[in-house]
Amino acid sequence: MTDVAAQRAAILVEALPYIRRFAGRTIVVKYGGNALAGTSGEDALSVFATDIVMMRLVGMRPVVVHGGGPQISELMGRLGKTAEFKDGLRVTDAETVDIARMVLIGQVNPQIVSAINVHGDYAVGVSGEDGGLIRAVARNPELGFVGDISSINPDVLERLLDDEFIPVVATVGADAEGQAFNINADTVAGEIAAALGAEKLVYLTDIDGLRRDIADAASLIRQTTPDELEQLISDGTIDGGMIPKVASCISAVRNGVGRAHILDGRTPHALLLELFTDAGVGTMVQMPASQNGD
Amino acid sequence: MTDVAAQRAAILVEALPYIRRFAGRTIVVKYGGNALAGTSGEDALSVFATDIVMMRLVGMRPVVVHGGGPQISELMGRLGKTAEFKDGLRVTDAETVDIARMVLIGQVNPQIVSAINVHGDYAVGVSGEDGGLIRAVARNPELGFVGDISSINPDVLERLLDDEFIPVVATVGADAEGQAFNINADTVAGEIAAALGAEKLVYLTDIDGLRRDIADAASLIRQTTPDELEQLISDGTIDGGMIPKVASCISAVRNGVGRAHILDGRTPHALLLELFTDAGVGTMVQMPASQNGD
Amino acid sequence: MTDVAAQRAAILVEALPYIRRFAGRTIVVKYGGNALAGTSGEDALSVFATDIVMMRLVGMRPVVVHGGGPQISELMGRLGKTAEFKDGLRVTDAETVDIARMVLIGQVNPQIVSAINVHGDYAVGVSGEDGGLIRAVARNPELGFVGDISSINPDVLERLLDDEFIPVVATVGADAEGQAFNINADTVAGEIAAALGAEKLVYLTDIDGLRRDIADAASLIRQTTPDELEQLISDGTIDGGMIPKVASCISAVRNGVGRAHILDGRTPHALLLELFTDAGVGTMVQMPASQNGD
Amino acid sequence: MTDVAAQRAAILVEALPYIRRFAGRTIVVKYGGNALAGTSGEDALSVFATDIVMMRLVGMRPVVVHGGGPQISELMGRLGKTAEFKDGLRVTDAETVDIARMVLIGQVNPQIVSAINVHGDYAVGVSGEDGGLIRAVARNPELGFVGDISSINPDVLERLLDDEFIPVVATVGADAEGQAFNINADTVAGEIAAALGAEKLVYLTDIDGLRRDIADAASLIRQTTPDELEQLISDGTIDGGMIPKVASCISAVRNGVGRAHILDGRTPHALLLELFTDAGVGTMVQMPASQNGD
Amino acid sequence: MTDVAAQRAAILVEALPYIRRFAGRTIVVKYGGNALAGTSGEDALSVFATDIVMMRLVGMRPVVVHGGGPQISELMGRLGKTAEFKDGLRVTDAETVDIARMVLIGQVNPQIVSAINVHGDYAVGVSGEDGGLIRAVARNPELGFVGDISSINPDVLERLLDDEFIPVVATVGADAEGQAFNINADTVAGEIAAALGAEKLVYLTDIDGLRRDIADAASLIRQTTPDELEQLISDGTIDGGMIPKVASCISAVRNGVGRAHILDGRTPHALLLELFTDAGVGTMVQMPASQNGD
Amino acid sequence: MTDVAAQRAAILVEALPYIRRFAGRTIVVKYGGNALAGTSGEDALSVFATDIVMMRLVGMRPVVVHGGGPQISELMGRLGKTAEFKDGLRVTDAETVDIARMVLIGQVNPQIVSAINVHGDYAVGVSGEDGGLIRAVARNPELGFVGDISSINPDVLERLLDDEFIPVVATVGADAEGQAFNINADTVAGEIAAALGAEKLVYLTDIDGLRRDIADAASLIRQTTPDELEQLISDGTIDGGMIPKVASCISAVRNGVGRAHILDGRTPHALLLELFTDAGVGTMVQMPASQNGD
Repeated sequence: MTDVAAQRAAILVEALPYIRRFAGRTIVVKYGGNALAGTSGEDALSVFATDIVMMRLVGMRPVVVHGGGPQISELMGRLGKTAEFKDGLRVTDAETVDIARMVLIGQVNPQIVSAINVHGDYAVGVSGEDGGLIRAVARNPELGFVGDISSINPDVLERLLDDEFIPVVATVGADAEGQAFNINADTVAGEIAAALGAEKLVYLTDIDGLRRDIADAASLIRQTTPDELEQLISDGTIDGGMIPKVASCISAVRNGVGRAHILDGRTPHALLLELFTDAGVGTMVQMPASQNGD
Repeated sequence: MTDVAAQRAAILVEALPYIRRFAGRTIVVKYGGNALAGTSGEDALSVFATDIVMMRLVGMRPVVVHGGGPQISELMGRLGKTAEFKDGLRVTDAETVDIARMVLIGQVNPQIVSAINVHGDYAVGVSGEDGGLIRAVARNPELGFVGDISSINPDVLERLLDDEFIPVVATVGADAEGQAFNINADTVAGEIAAALGAEKLVYLTDIDGLRRDIADAASLIRQTTPDELEQLISDGTIDGGMIPKVASCISAVRNGVGRAHILDGRTPHALLLELFTDAGVGTMVQMPASQNGD
Repeated sequence: MTDVAAQRAAILVEALPYIRRFAGRTIVVKYGGNALAGTSGEDALSVFATDIVMMRLVGMRPVVVHGGGPQISELMGRLGKTAEFKDGLRVTDAETVDIARMVLIGQVNPQIVSAINVHGDYAVGVSGEDGGLIRAVARNPELGFVGDISSINPDVLERLLDDEFIPVVATVGADAEGQAFNINADTVAGEIAAALGAEKLVYLTDIDGLRRDIADAASLIRQTTPDELEQLISDGTIDGGMIPKVASCISAVRNGVGRAHILDGRTPHALLLELFTDAGVGTMVQMPASQNGD
Repeated sequence: MTDVAAQRAAILVEALPYIRRFAGRTIVVKYGGNALAGTSGEDALSVFATDIVMMRLVGMRPVVVHGGGPQISELMGRLGKTAEFKDGLRVTDAETVDIARMVLIGQVNPQIVSAINVHGDYAVGVSGEDGGLIRAVARNPELGFVGDISSINPDVLERLLDDEFIPVVATVGADAEGQAFNINADTVAGEIAAALGAEKLVYLTDIDGLRRDIADAASLIRQTTPDELEQLISDGTIDGGMIPKVASCISAVRNGVGRAHILDGRTPHALLLELFTDAGVGTMVQMPASQNGD
Repeated sequence: MTDVAAQRAAILVEALPYIRRFAGRTIVVKYGGNALAGTSGEDALSVFATDIVMMRLVGMRPVVVHGGGPQISELMGRLGKTAEFKDGLRVTDAETVDIARMVLIGQVNPQIVSAINVHGDYAVGVSGEDGGLIRAVARNPELGFVGDISSINPDVLERLLDDEFIPVVATVGADAEGQAFNINADTVAGEIAAALGAEKLVYLTDIDGLRRDIADAASLIRQTTPDELEQLISDGTIDGGMIPKVASCISAVRNGVGRAHILDGRTPHALLLELFTDAGVGTMVQMPASQNGD
Repeated sequence: MTDVAAQRAAILVEALPYIRRFAGRTIVVKYGGNALAGTSGEDALSVFATDIVMMRLVGMRPVVVHGGGPQISELMGRLGKTAEFKDGLRVTDAETVDIARMVLIGQVNPQIVSAINVHGDYAVGVSGEDGGLIRAVARNPELGFVGDISSINPDVLERLLDDEFIPVVATVGADAEGQAFNINADTVAGEIAAALGAEKLVYLTDIDGLRRDIADAASLIRQTTPDELEQLISDGTIDGGMIPKVASCISAVRNGVGRAHILDGRTPHALLLELFTDAGVGTMVQMPASQNGD
């Protein structure tokens, strides 16, 4: 037996306990719009798709949730519309929500579906309007059609998972009259993970994880709890765009999701390495040991 | 008992044998992009959605297939792109197929889904890329990404129907590498009807049916056969945009679909009246009596 | 579109929310022996059968319960037996209970089954002895084989409903030794509705509903509660043969049946109009709003 | 171990191979109206019911089919109606068929159901009108409502058997308009056995079996074939009331029923002894060895 | 009808209520190694196998548990190994546990499986290591590989029972590292009965039952309770090899098993007679009437 | 990302298409008794067990078949019995078949089960007598209880596979009277693979594969067909103990098994490398391309 063969065998064997542990478990993965934008987006997406298919093949039930902020801004630009923000939130008039819907459901979502389906007939795109998945209410009249989640009906996702498909969710919701709303994708991912009783919620981001000192790469947090994260938000260590992710991690873990992870999506196969090898990457959030049954 | 009550009861009772006949049967309805365009589109869509929900509630399994030509042209215009046609077919470069996909999957499809879901969590949007539903090949290199159907995998539709959802299909397909293609929606409707073994295939159009003499409203064809239709195509009576619809009717009926209908979608509730009352509307295509078991 | 077509469509559409609301729900309908007697009985039965089949076709689970007092008296007469009553209850000796059983199970029941099955293989006659549906005990030795219900085993009804049949129940019960008893059909209907967790219990009678003042047609009660009905019984407004119906409505609604109705079975399609149109007819009983979740 | 215990054990053990052989198999038993009539009818029925319950408990799927000629004649007599016969068949006017229906469905059937249900909630009475079980056509206008079987829909029986009930069938059928017909119970038993693919068809009669010489008890036929029986009919050895039974045995065995039996129902537990012991009783009909796979 | 036939029928009918009572119920039978040893072992096994198959055929779910002490000693002897005992327990070194495993799983178990399968493809041998059925821990380091039960995972037994097989259990267990242990078969039978929620636990022994006075056959205990048995153990009436059986009866009955029996396995068909006739044999243990729902 | 992580990811990704290809497929693996004998047997078994668990976790349905020749000879030696051979086959008297059964079912089988179950409650030992899996007939009276396979009833294996267990098969069979026979394990593996419609049949041996020239390691056959193998047998290139393996490969592939493999079981994780990496090892047998659908 050559050394190469021995090494191959060793790596495959290392994956075994993780495969056993996650068999039949639902894993919600938030894939950012940023990851898809830019020149290397295609390749990154192809690598991501491979990881998702691998998860499905070894018996997990992956659900992909995605946003698409940069792509929305880009189409708005091409249509001569200027993005307007208020307190960091995009003011979303009727035309803007139509553009957002077109981009999220009609551009980003099929890109991801298509990348996965190169491997087989696995992925099915789902918008929050499908089967009443995401019911929304306006957050603030001044922001227009920016929505908060009023309820999640996970039925369509559960059926697709039971039918062995991989759902890919575009985060547009609708109210009872069918009016569409743009909803924060990080928040949707957390709520869906809770509604599905997921084992894991994973955010693929463009940072290497949370830090206790933003300026110090060595202060990367490997493992933390909801309580500590709330402290880091209230003292301002965590701010800006990370807040919806972190708040969703806190809420998901408190609502029964086993673990939440913030990974560096720029690392190829970050998902695979986190799930299948002894060397986890990024930041993991879970309840303190006394409360999580470990 | 008042006369009004008696009349109400009579109309409900008239529907009974039709409800019984179509219980558990799959009905594929092609809804045109034209119907949605223009000022009265919203109202017409709401009426159409009611009919589809009614079909589902009385035990049929409706599948909606839609196109969106006018909406694609409109977005192309806003983006400063000129539509180019060759032999009546839109030349579809890479940018155009992206626009078509955005419009079909991200604009027209959610409009229909949303109109149906005002009544409950019924509709789920499906693109031809979801679950490998429509595999496509390029029709002609000069036309770019205009596709022909190479195969239909109806699995995702069958699962959604079994789960009691109403699938709404956007007619974008993909090849094995994941490249998207724009596909004629009339053709897709026919192929899906055949693949699902549908009982009926219904085209909602903006004409009152097929005519033997195009200039003579009195020559409306109530009932016909594939053979007669082929004759009408070869003698030029049927031409232009009607050909894909008529060819699909011919092919679907020859491949096991019970009946194909060309109805006037401008009549409110045309679908309901065709399905539930003694007075059928428009043109019906079926195999000659000696071959259809009636 | 003609006005007639528009009106037809409107009436069908009006039925939609009711169909949606009652899909999959069990509706117990008590059909009186009176309705079947007399010259117009045949036609009335045919109309009733249509309504029941319609309920089944749009997804409800109807159960028919019937009596047959006039028919029992008629056969007793032909056999030269005089009916004897004590406190308004028929004294039922061994021969009388045999006659009642013959009439209910062998005459009235197959008449109803047969009227329904003109539309298809839907109805299955069930006696209270089948599958131990109704276990009975003697009410009073002086009355002979007049029984009270000691227990209901709804298993045979649930199986038939799950198998998509329409059960038609003849209200004869038996004790543990197999001795048959005649049981009040109004009471059986209420107990079966409760045992099945029915959504609705409907009595088709030969009055137009309950009245607050028996002499004043204008005092018809559209909607009431168990408490008010108890008051109307104790003050004598409701008496005689209506008491078992009203007592069963009270008991059924208090035991989880959504609503109980007393309709005028002489109105053709009263059932259809009550179930499928905005204009309910007769008297409806339900728990006060604060306790019924509406 | 006492001798008694040893003998008990031996008899139980003898039953074992038969129980194994018939597990899950359908056995249709025709129980005659004669058996029920007269003073000892009650006791005989109780013994018969025990045998049927035993069959069900050891895993067979028994179906009981019964007639009721003597009981029909008796009620006709009480109602002052004279039975009229033409070529041995009862002329059945509208009133007579109503009486027959009452007696079969409303008197004989519940007697049998009730005798079985003393042991548990096993039996469910079924008439040929239930679920469209027996569709009938008039045999001969001069005979009135005497019917031949035009089709059997065994669905209701199969569902009840799958739900572990024991169906007890009253042999009244109906035509498409719901008109009832009286049908020969021996014929019904054979057709139902064929439609259900039964393993066995058993006639409980008041003779000890078929004889080659009617006058010679020693000529009892233990085992025979359809061909020999046809010979015995054509030479007149078998005639009269035995013909429908024997013709049904011939037809059933030729249509896939494993074996048909003509037993002496006057012997207590004849059914049990035939089914569970090495000493078969009466006459057995099966295809010749070369054609029956034994 | 001959007297013999009448008697046969009577004995079969006597079995009916017992068959009904135990249908679908799990019965755990401990078969001793002693019963198999010696010259008459083969015949006794064949009789036992018949009884087990009979139980299965009439709808019970039998589970056989066996030991094999004499056979282990015999092989040890042939291999020149002396059995060593400490406080009545066999000291079990590594070689001894290997021998015990070989004998129990590879000799006694297939003997029983094979005797049952002469009747059909019913029995499947199961060791405590299969599917993690019996997890064991060392009882006492001085005794070597003599194990106590740390947990029972009845999954493999439930699956085999649901698949209509008869599991035959060899009482070898393993710890988490896969080390085998020899476990007392009487104890295993009791724990398995409790884990399966069995209706009955039956010990086939070589005594005629428990006695209040060991020297007095007339003092045989027909029926007793856990409390009384504890008293008989503490006052020394029950001792030696009977203690694991009796302790298991106590524990099983207290943990939900309906009844536990100690029968004389030397009586042919003791099992059959106990289960299917009015004359029970041996000693029965159950909770006092006030606590067992009888 | 470190190089190590990249390499790990690459190896996992390489496994993906194989996992996809074999999901839900049955793979029969013959594990030789030789592999277990000797000092390194324990470690080799532990590595083998890991591979089998890995197969199960990624969705394959592995079945292990084993022999145990060396272990049988060893116990015979200890019991003072001399092995006698005739034409290369062990003469198997009654005592020898008992020893073989003890060793195969009671020693080798639980060793393998136990090694697998260190990872979880996966493996269930099955002998050919369980559920009538292997029916055998004597090959030749002079050889005693050496059996040929007369039929395979794969029911018990299919049930265990459906219940997600890993069956481990000891190759002892029985005739209809329950007499045990020793059967060649290589032959059993092939017949079971064919009976289960397995995707693959894998022999783990102590050679590196088949050679065209036995003396020349460079003549290793990577890929071959049944026809070529027959040629190699008839010209004597393949002989001795390899013949049952090779004949089984030929027969299995001709009876629908996709591919048969002869691997070097001395290479750690040979199974894993063959199944999950691009570099297959050993010799593969399949039908010629024109006949295997590739």
